Amino acid sequence: MNTNYSAIEQNLVKFLRDETAKAGIKKAVIGLSGGIDSAVSAFLSAKAFGPENVLGVLMPYKTSSRASVTDAERVVKALGIRSKKFEITDMVDSYISKLEGDVPAVRKGNVMARMRMIVLYDNSAVESGIVIGTGNKTEIYLGYTTLFGDSACGINPVGNLYKTQIFGLAKYMGVPEEILNKRPSADLWEGQTDEGEMGILYAEVDKYLYAKFDEGKSDDELIKMGFGKEYIEKINGIIAKNEFKRLPVKIGSI
Amino acid sequence: MNTNYSAIEQNLVKFLRDETAKAGIKKAVIGLSGGIDSAVSAFLSAKAFGPENVLGVLMPYKTSSRASVTDAERVVKALGIRSKKFEITDMVDSYISKLEGDVPAVRKGNVMARMRMIVLYDNSAVESGIVIGTGNKTEIYLGYTTLFGDSACGINPVGNLYKTQIFGLAKYMGVPEEILNKRPSADLWEGQTDEGEMGILYAEVDKYLYAKFDEGKSDDELIKMGFGKEYIEKINGIIAKNEFKRLPVKIGSI
Repeated sequence: MNTNYSAIEQNLVKFLRDETAKAGIKKAVIGLSGGIDSAVSAFLSAKAFGPENVLGVLMPYKTSSRASVTDAERVVKALGIRSKKFEITDMVDSYISKLEGDVPAVRKGNVMARMRMIVLYDNSAVESGIVIGTGNKTEIYLGYTTLFGDSACGINPVGNLYKTQIFGLAKYMGVPEEILNKRPSADLWEGQTDEGEMGILYAEVDKYLYAKFDEGKSDDELIKMGFGKEYIEKINGIIAKNEFKRLPVKIGSI
Repeated sequence: MNTNYSAIEQNLVKFLRDETAKAGIKKAVIGLSGGIDSAVSAFLSAKAFGPENVLGVLMPYKTSSRASVTDAERVVKALGIRSKKFEITDMVDSYISKLEGDVPAVRKGNVMARMRMIVLYDNSAVESGIVIGTGNKTEIYLGYTTLFGDSACGINPVGNLYKTQIFGLAKYMGVPEEILNKRPSADLWEGQTDEGEMGILYAEVDKYLYAKFDEGKSDDELIKMGFGKEYIEKINGIIAKNEFKRLPVKIGSI
């Protein structure tokens, strides 16, 4: 796994600059969750576009942890980017409150993620800016993302970085300690952590995904590496179930 | 241009059945706008899944024309599919009302289209169904669509049909007259028509797009066909400006 963070930073900043220049885009809009992925994307964006051309948008829901907002504000301060806070509570509740019965947390989480997409895209229209993606390679493979929600973006600088590499790059680029040190969480409900919800450890699954996809190792080789049969089945099942999120939509031929 | 609507219908119904069967999906959810595209997609879906397995969702906004709802209800009645009506007014206004100054109609239209996506996807979660796309080939090339809004779907049976073919297939399949006879409109504001807003006639642009993309004609050949230089520049400009909507998101290499 590539851990040359100096080169990675350089490549990704250049990628953002080159690709947006082709379209004449000079500004970026990014949702800041207080987590490490959006922090890294914001750090890269600030280098690529200049801090004054990056708008960080904080979009807490009423149940969002206070730390999420505080940590997002740390990113804004560390970079000197522009920012705004827009509470999505009324938007989300205007939908949820009309539904009958209990709405499962996952459905509610998807509504929240999609409402945030609406706010980001509307801000990008005002700014004539591009929405910067924050989805890492681990979450893309595992489908730990809301389609048309947090995965929606115009360009994604961090989609080829496993979560392990996100941590490495974050440390290298000077992302605030508080963000480096907390457990990753989508913060869709209290106490949620990615690893707890998925029943997966990032350090382990990243090794697995890298061996399987980047190195093309067979199941036999993965077993020799120490991954159990059950683990392989579990992860492969998650990948298969969520494959539709990363494939283009099928269109009927006539 | 293929106008063998009997074969087209057969191919697209088979496409819906085969592709969803692979994923074990037996139900469909579709937004019914009262327009001809969603009518055709609903007709195909009812044949593919059986009317009882199709949920048509009507999602009017307070400014939606009464005819839009009436025509969507005609589709439901003609097919005998299940349906529900969910007003998006509160959802949209919960966002728009918080913005400062006048919000341009296009921004408001995008918010409406994306709110409808949220409603459709939440219903698809309840149904364990797939969201059926309604975007035709003309609007996909011209980008006359809201990204992550009306273009968002799990599968799209009509994406290879130009608008002209949509009309032909609609007539062949028995879509109600009232829908066949009205001017296409996104109904995002009063009196809006697609052709008026874009300054383009579907009959003409479909001939152009077919000649350019399906037949691979050069600019010289297009001019010999009778398309003016200005027209060619205008349409090519629209296509280029909206290309990002139909291309996969670029992800940085490391």
